[in-house]
Amino acid sequence: MTIDDSLRAVEELMLAATRSSVPLLSETTAHILAAGGKRLRPHLVLLAHQAVGGSDVDYVIPLAAAVEIIHTATLVHDDINDHGTLRRGRETVNARWGTTFALLTGDYMFTKTYQIMAPYPADLNLILTKACIELVEGETLQIQVSKRGVLDRDTYFEIISKKTAALFVACARLGATAAKASHESIEALAQFAFRLGLAFQITDDILDLVADTQQLGKNTGVDRRQGRGIAAVRESGQGKVVAPEAAIAETSGILSLVEDNLPQEYTLDAVVELGRQQARELADAAIARLSALPPSEAVDQLRAMAHQAVERDR
Amino acid sequence: MTIDDSLRAVEELMLAATRSSVPLLSETTAHILAAGGKRLRPHLVLLAHQAVGGSDVDYVIPLAAAVEIIHTATLVHDDINDHGTLRRGRETVNARWGTTFALLTGDYMFTKTYQIMAPYPADLNLILTKACIELVEGETLQIQVSKRGVLDRDTYFEIISKKTAALFVACARLGATAAKASHESIEALAQFAFRLGLAFQITDDILDLVADTQQLGKNTGVDRRQGRGIAAVRESGQGKVVAPEAAIAETSGILSLVEDNLPQEYTLDAVVELGRQQARELADAAIARLSALPPSEAVDQLRAMAHQAVERDR
Repeated sequence: MTIDDSLRAVEELMLAATRSSVPLLSETTAHILAAGGKRLRPHLVLLAHQAVGGSDVDYVIPLAAAVEIIHTATLVHDDINDHGTLRRGRETVNARWGTTFALLTGDYMFTKTYQIMAPYPADLNLILTKACIELVEGETLQIQVSKRGVLDRDTYFEIISKKTAALFVACARLGATAAKASHESIEALAQFAFRLGLAFQITDDILDLVADTQQLGKNTGVDRRQGRGIAAVRESGQGKVVAPEAAIAETSGILSLVEDNLPQEYTLDAVVELGRQQARELADAAIARLSALPPSEAVDQLRAMAHQAVERDR
Repeated sequence: MTIDDSLRAVEELMLAATRSSVPLLSETTAHILAAGGKRLRPHLVLLAHQAVGGSDVDYVIPLAAAVEIIHTATLVHDDINDHGTLRRGRETVNARWGTTFALLTGDYMFTKTYQIMAPYPADLNLILTKACIELVEGETLQIQVSKRGVLDRDTYFEIISKKTAALFVACARLGATAAKASHESIEALAQFAFRLGLAFQITDDILDLVADTQQLGKNTGVDRRQGRGIAAVRESGQGKVVAPEAAIAETSGILSLVEDNLPQEYTLDAVVELGRQQARELADAAIARLSALPPSEAVDQLRAMAHQAVERDR
């Protein structure tokens, strides 16, 4: 089975597993799942499995589906909190069915992840529970920061570590552990995935900062309002940034990330370029970890994934 | 260890297990857990375990804690949907910290349940996942019904089966399965718990119908607005019920439950008495299932629990 075949099987399983005796829940869940997405996380599970010589694809496909379902569940709940109306180019569940059913849809998807995972051994379940807890903690921290209006570099990294990188790490560990890989291989892949997750999220935040609603297919400005964008930078477009105290207080993760290197008069272009540079360095650091693994097509694809995570415009 | 000791250990574990590196989540979770509650579900886990001769209390306490945490998580999310402001005599999480943090608190508690369960064998996890899914499905159905404004007897039973009885069944199965009980004993306890859950929820709905806010320690009228109360009955107090079409459309579960036996001119007292009678019959049917088990103190306590579930005023 090729990786593409496996990814198709993941799609089918996600839809089949979330069918409910309550038609509304089948409908809301299918709506958000069918909207697609990059499927980076299931892809990572499958590649990590292959990279350590694993070949039991049937065993790993449900793990990949579980991870993507829980990721999607958090998006559904985030969209409630952000009052987002577009996600993956489609109406959000809360925009179409209201807050209450969106809340229940997220809960439902979470329980389905748990159901898919239940037959698996404890070590795999413990990997995923750790990430689930960090997902919620990261989102909580981010909202606290947005209410405070201040975001420093350490807190920014704590947020993206928990909110994004933790689930990437779980993907790598799940795929590799399912193949009974050596401790060294699992750790190398986990470290790869952690850096990949950070690089991916920084790139996402940069894209949020510059992209318009249409290009990204979701509401930009929403994360920004929550303290992960620079209002002042955006207001002034590509020109010189006039940053009064109010705007500094609203600093995004990206600004906190690059401020050591900022010239006194900086532009949006400069902020974005410095941010992208940091993301690239993390992607390179991720790739360096792959040298612990024997060369293979899967490792090549992991390397390509890391490049792609930072060299994208959506 | 007595049952009371075990229940105290459950309390301690619930608080310890939900401590987070994000202080807000420790705080919100402790707030709602410390508000107490009947702890009927952990009690049921422990008694079911004992009733089949189980004695590995340390093994069962985390199961009991997991069940109560997931139950509490659903209350936190229900309070968002109901705009409830009081729960167990305390401010709800959404009233005190807002909808966003209440949503994340529920999510967090759910992930903690999953974490507590992760080290346990698949059969126990599958028991709990089934109930979790039904919890969400039952709540979804209930809200759909409330929007529609019509509730018939079958739908009322479907809702309370999923929303309440399913988790009671899981409690009984968890406790008994952990003791490696016979298939017959597990099924007898599961059937006991199913009927107990129905009787308990009907009684809850009756109390909602008649109790005032103070007496019950939570917002009455909230569930009623969601189609589980009889506005017309309430308006008219103890007197003759004038039930225009609008009020019939708003019929609660209780009205649907008793309407076959209603005299043409019925009072709130009559509705309540007929409802209580149905709850008592279910409690008796529950108790009858216990005859499959050898007599013991635990079985006596299960019997007392069933009586108590229907003979209470809060």
